[in-house]
Amino acid sequence: MGWNSWDCYGAAVTEDIVRANADFMAKHLKEYGWEYVVVDIQWYEPGATSHEYRRFARLETDKFGRLIPAANRFPSAADGKGFKPLADYVHSLGLKFGIHIMRGIPRQAVYDDLPIEGTKFKAGDAARFNSICYWNPDMYGVEDNEAGRAYYASILKLYASWGVDFIKCDDICRELPREEAELLMLAFAISECGRDIVLSLSPGPALLEKAELYKETANMWRITDDFWDDWRLLYAMFERAEKWSIHAGAGHYPDADMLPIGPIRQNESKKNRTKFTKDEQITMMTLWSIMRSPLMIGGDMTRFDDFTMGLVTNEGILKMLRNSRHAHKVWQKNIDETEFILWTAASAEGGLYAALFNTGDAKASCDLSLSDLEVYVPVTVTELWSGTSKEAENMLKCELPSHGAAAFYIK
Amino acid sequence: MGWNSWDCYGAAVTEDIVRANADFMAKHLKEYGWEYVVVDIQWYEPGATSHEYRRFARLETDKFGRLIPAANRFPSAADGKGFKPLADYVHSLGLKFGIHIMRGIPRQAVYDDLPIEGTKFKAGDAARFNSICYWNPDMYGVEDNEAGRAYYASILKLYASWGVDFIKCDDICRELPREEAELLMLAFAISECGRDIVLSLSPGPALLEKAELYKETANMWRITDDFWDDWRLLYAMFERAEKWSIHAGAGHYPDADMLPIGPIRQNESKKNRTKFTKDEQITMMTLWSIMRSPLMIGGDMTRFDDFTMGLVTNEGILKMLRNSRHAHKVWQKNIDETEFILWTAASAEGGLYAALFNTGDAKASCDLSLSDLEVYVPVTVTELWSGTSKEAENMLKCELPSHGAAAFYIK
Amino acid sequence: MGWNSWDCYGAAVTEDIVRANADFMAKHLKEYGWEYVVVDIQWYEPGATSHEYRRFARLETDKFGRLIPAANRFPSAADGKGFKPLADYVHSLGLKFGIHIMRGIPRQAVYDDLPIEGTKFKAGDAARFNSICYWNPDMYGVEDNEAGRAYYASILKLYASWGVDFIKCDDICRELPREEAELLMLAFAISECGRDIVLSLSPGPALLEKAELYKETANMWRITDDFWDDWRLLYAMFERAEKWSIHAGAGHYPDADMLPIGPIRQNESKKNRTKFTKDEQITMMTLWSIMRSPLMIGGDMTRFDDFTMGLVTNEGILKMLRNSRHAHKVWQKNIDETEFILWTAASAEGGLYAALFNTGDAKASCDLSLSDLEVYVPVTVTELWSGTSKEAENMLKCELPSHGAAAFYIK
Amino acid sequence: MGWNSWDCYGAAVTEDIVRANADFMAKHLKEYGWEYVVVDIQWYEPGATSHEYRRFARLETDKFGRLIPAANRFPSAADGKGFKPLADYVHSLGLKFGIHIMRGIPRQAVYDDLPIEGTKFKAGDAARFNSICYWNPDMYGVEDNEAGRAYYASILKLYASWGVDFIKCDDICRELPREEAELLMLAFAISECGRDIVLSLSPGPALLEKAELYKETANMWRITDDFWDDWRLLYAMFERAEKWSIHAGAGHYPDADMLPIGPIRQNESKKNRTKFTKDEQITMMTLWSIMRSPLMIGGDMTRFDDFTMGLVTNEGILKMLRNSRHAHKVWQKNIDETEFILWTAASAEGGLYAALFNTGDAKASCDLSLSDLEVYVPVTVTELWSGTSKEAENMLKCELPSHGAAAFYIK
Repeated sequence: MGWNSWDCYGAAVTEDIVRANADFMAKHLKEYGWEYVVVDIQWYEPGATSHEYRRFARLETDKFGRLIPAANRFPSAADGKGFKPLADYVHSLGLKFGIHIMRGIPRQAVYDDLPIEGTKFKAGDAARFNSICYWNPDMYGVEDNEAGRAYYASILKLYASWGVDFIKCDDICRELPREEAELLMLAFAISECGRDIVLSLSPGPALLEKAELYKETANMWRITDDFWDDWRLLYAMFERAEKWSIHAGAGHYPDADMLPIGPIRQNESKKNRTKFTKDEQITMMTLWSIMRSPLMIGGDMTRFDDFTMGLVTNEGILKMLRNSRHAHKVWQKNIDETEFILWTAASAEGGLYAALFNTGDAKASCDLSLSDLEVYVPVTVTELWSGTSKEAENMLKCELPSHGAAAFYIK
Repeated sequence: MGWNSWDCYGAAVTEDIVRANADFMAKHLKEYGWEYVVVDIQWYEPGATSHEYRRFARLETDKFGRLIPAANRFPSAADGKGFKPLADYVHSLGLKFGIHIMRGIPRQAVYDDLPIEGTKFKAGDAARFNSICYWNPDMYGVEDNEAGRAYYASILKLYASWGVDFIKCDDICRELPREEAELLMLAFAISECGRDIVLSLSPGPALLEKAELYKETANMWRITDDFWDDWRLLYAMFERAEKWSIHAGAGHYPDADMLPIGPIRQNESKKNRTKFTKDEQITMMTLWSIMRSPLMIGGDMTRFDDFTMGLVTNEGILKMLRNSRHAHKVWQKNIDETEFILWTAASAEGGLYAALFNTGDAKASCDLSLSDLEVYVPVTVTELWSGTSKEAENMLKCELPSHGAAAFYIK
Repeated sequence: MGWNSWDCYGAAVTEDIVRANADFMAKHLKEYGWEYVVVDIQWYEPGATSHEYRRFARLETDKFGRLIPAANRFPSAADGKGFKPLADYVHSLGLKFGIHIMRGIPRQAVYDDLPIEGTKFKAGDAARFNSICYWNPDMYGVEDNEAGRAYYASILKLYASWGVDFIKCDDICRELPREEAELLMLAFAISECGRDIVLSLSPGPALLEKAELYKETANMWRITDDFWDDWRLLYAMFERAEKWSIHAGAGHYPDADMLPIGPIRQNESKKNRTKFTKDEQITMMTLWSIMRSPLMIGGDMTRFDDFTMGLVTNEGILKMLRNSRHAHKVWQKNIDETEFILWTAASAEGGLYAALFNTGDAKASCDLSLSDLEVYVPVTVTELWSGTSKEAENMLKCELPSHGAAAFYIK
Repeated sequence: MGWNSWDCYGAAVTEDIVRANADFMAKHLKEYGWEYVVVDIQWYEPGATSHEYRRFARLETDKFGRLIPAANRFPSAADGKGFKPLADYVHSLGLKFGIHIMRGIPRQAVYDDLPIEGTKFKAGDAARFNSICYWNPDMYGVEDNEAGRAYYASILKLYASWGVDFIKCDDICRELPREEAELLMLAFAISECGRDIVLSLSPGPALLEKAELYKETANMWRITDDFWDDWRLLYAMFERAEKWSIHAGAGHYPDADMLPIGPIRQNESKKNRTKFTKDEQITMMTLWSIMRSPLMIGGDMTRFDDFTMGLVTNEGILKMLRNSRHAHKVWQKNIDETEFILWTAASAEGGLYAALFNTGDAKASCDLSLSDLEVYVPVTVTELWSGTSKEAENMLKCELPSHGAAAFYIK
């Protein structure tokens, strides 16, 4: 559970924004379990101003070709201090600090002919000339050789010295099996760096047939391409969630991507807000929580309204996120021409969870048979968003708005 | 849970064999929950003697083109009594009676120009000339028209009058979406026939994208082509089970096919026995039970040895079959060059199940971390095949023979 | 070059229609090289009245299960005389006689349990229960066994005795490689029957990768599904022609299907005429002739108008059909937003042919560079449809109506 | 018809080798029509020594980022004179001069931040960061924008000033449709550069569905990946030739790649010679000539033996290359268990060509029916390799060694 700068500031986030959001999280959200503050892509690009990348922009690196924060955007990083001051600050708030990296080594370091730290190699010895990212110009992929391994060790050494707790590595998750060797190099470098660092893989969709590899190397992996505030993307997540749900477990989680809630796309206009309806946001939080997707806030928290604060501080929902086990879809069917989807999960505390979604275009009712959940005795049912409880036997009458959801704890 | 004649007698089973197995089940297995006695394919073919089908064999039908038991093989069916006497006998033992049918209408009825019972239609009005089964010569598919629906109603009327409790319909499960209309006609005819009849669909592999349709129309559906006593087929079932596990629920179960245990292929030689090793049979029973596959015995029960009786009367395993919920694979990985697979499930009574499989070619050990099961407190672990219990914390040391399994109840 | 009854009368053609068209051909077209008179599908179905097939209609067969003409439609076939009287009549006009057959053996013969002529086999020994035609209910495919070969020998013996010169075998051309054995059996039976019989394979599209097999077994094979009077089908033929053109040679020709010209679909209404414009018909005749497709007239010749007669009696075009060698497309490109296609061929008499097509939606001009035809010297150019000649050097100015064509002989 | 340095010297050819081969060609081969002398890849890489490319090697460019010859390998290019002195020398011999280029702009020019000649643009404005070659590290693809077009104009201006007559552009032929815009930019730049320059596209296999585009933009295009002296590659060429044969015409030719004959791979060892047998070389020359593939000698001509000289100076074969029209395969079939392939073509002088190939593993005989070539009259048949003529009617008896060929002119 944390916050990531991409949805609200793209490649253009600055230190003051990060600090303000960290302050806010510490003060208002830490008690609910929110913990990670993550700086997304191109913190090393002095001229980044949007969600786009500048053509062949000159990047900040140290003398070993390792990317370092652009001091015009992250003033505390001046004089080669890197992210250490900012990470220290975040840690002082009782939070954790994360960064985004691209798979690979800067192309610029190759043409600058820079050495790899602590070795006799040059960047060109580690770079693979024909391994590139299709949507970002910064890096070459890294060879599975001594130079390549030394490069990955050198950047992890730097990140550990800064106090990084979380790495979101991009251009790698859906690039398997081609880039499998590079994933293994990265995971090995993290395990050897001397600091506990969470590894998050991006972008999706991840490959289902590589599920075991993701579990063994990473803590979370994106099951989708970039997710934004569009119902079609949210609806499509149900199918992805269904395929991936059985792969969530201790320390490894399929990742449905950040929550585009509250003020997003702030680099375009301060007036931008999520286009999701309130019901769609409830659907999103319900699905993410029952399937145990990592929750990363995408909006600028400092200007959250009450509804949005309610979304991320509902104790029943956050408890479901922690205690849900073995979540999966029960059925998906049309009832009186409206499509409903039912999910269920066991609770680690006993009892079970159920989530019902109306994915149709109008408000609709559904008589939910408890036998569909294999409940054959009288139970107490608590709806988590409303907090209301009632006794039930055989049947649960539900009415849901279009694109809305209900989440039940049943015992 | 039941018995089916295919694995031991193919298309050649006779009434005395069915009666003897029903007697045996009633006496020795009923108390463990075994209940269904099912006569498999071509009970209407007087000359059937093997697992093969005779070229354009003349079949027994009534005057409405409905297939009826060959009286030379099922003497009690003489004089048009059909399976009623045999079903009555099975019921008298406190068991249930099932039959196999092929999708469609006999081709022979079309060329004999027979009427459809209770209608002005002829068989030719219901038959689709270009819908055939690729491995059996008996039937044409049925049109989705008034004649077709009348034909399905007419056969269900007959089966209900016989007292049939279970229908295994063949040439339909993997034929979707082409034959979807015929599945819907059949399911409708069953729902209207006035008797509770379980519907089992064959052969597999079923189509994952049609999971919701199987759940809505049938009680069980084959997730595999015919399963026999070959380790490669058993090993392949793990992947199928993984894909289908989330679709098991109240009244609808992915079906991993019959259990080829004990004396099978008896029509070829009375000496034939399953080629599975004992450990492979334990692996099979463990996987089928945790994933909640229907259990249908394939061998001739009357000559089961003690080991085989033990397989089908282990109370812990059968309890797991009943109480397992939300089963799924946890991981599949090589440990010291031996592949292990771990499954887990919640128990409806609280606590959880775990099944560990050694799919490698040699005996091997595995230190099973309880955190992989998200168990972080001291627990009591009962191994169900041996019945032994012990306290455990953090780690469970396991040693498994090649192709062997252990099943744990943890609380 | 011939006439086929399908386009004008479907499955419902009768003897008087065949005789009238044969008379017309003998009198008006024979001198131009038109020669074959072919009775298309279901001449053995007494109740055939359209282009559709009746459900499980009872067919006429002899006592060996061989299909024979329905005497109500072909009176001269009464008393078991088969097509001999009609073939004799066609021969008496100096023409040749052909029939359509379906791959396989009548399903009805299997259920009637009929013997195969001259053998101890029954129809059921030759039939393959799972080989059917998807669009016609009459036949089962034939096994590649002794019974199957005897069946094919028996029907060829019958057809040879009738005096058949041409067999169009259906449900076989695009069914390779699955039905390859049956094609070889048929070709062998023809070669052994003691009479020269042209073999035409249908329906298309034929498989390009089987070109060598078609050449070795048949005289012509359909490169397209049924062709009708629709510009989209005609336009699509250019691509098929391009792929197949190099496979035309002595005695083996890719077949672009019948010419739907003049009165067609006469079983629906006597007023029906081809929907092709005159220019489209010229395009069709030009393409078929330069690529050397067999020409089979589809319309009722007895009521051809002058334009249609002109189409099939243009001596320059028919000479191109006979003398064209190595035809192929030269280019296909947009000139001032109109697409033109240029084909060329050598002439067996020296000189070369060129055909230019305007496939655009409006009249348009094209300056045809003779160097595109690798002509670098002054030449005489004769346009075959108009019969006009002129001297040319370097360039040929052409103006073509929409969907129109010009055909040139250049020397 | 020409010579190319790749097969014998890879990326490591030097000026003296080019001059020696040009001298040889002028003296011994020019009279037979051999004309082009082409310097293949990486003439701008000072350290190139083999068929491999060095990791991120520093390349020679002018101040506008245009690649120029490495003066250590091409001494006459010193002082910015480029290939002009070498081209002048080749021209002085009555021959033509060609070079190899890679699609795109040097990556190095982007990171050196060089301007595009005559514009305000930088290399980075023309480069596409995500368009690379998979097997060579030198270039980025070029954007279809003003900067990109200016870059292509700038290099063509340079090449025209050098006197280049032939450009082999690599990494483009099989990269369609993705790189179609770049092909169009290049073709346009050539047409505007003020000099006649032949455009050859590499590597193959070209895309058949783009045949019209190749014809409109280029003079020759590779129908195969790199071709070397291996029978399997030669055998595979028959199928490619069959597909492409109809697309050979005035000024545009499918290219079966260079002829690996005589001394090849000379950068590895001066002792290396082609591994093709003599018969295989005859097969190659026969197929290339009848299908009209461009002929580019791959071996070092200065050390050709008599057999090899005979291969490239056979007047009958070279005449077939010039006069063959509409070549295509006639058939490919097994005769007494040996596969033979027959090709034919019209001759621009009248008469026809035929080529017969024995692709089997042993010497074998074939009675070639002249009717297969649609020759029905007595003819004179000249075998071009032996120069012998004889009269023939109906049949031509041929005996061919394994992997051997005969080429006939028939009139």
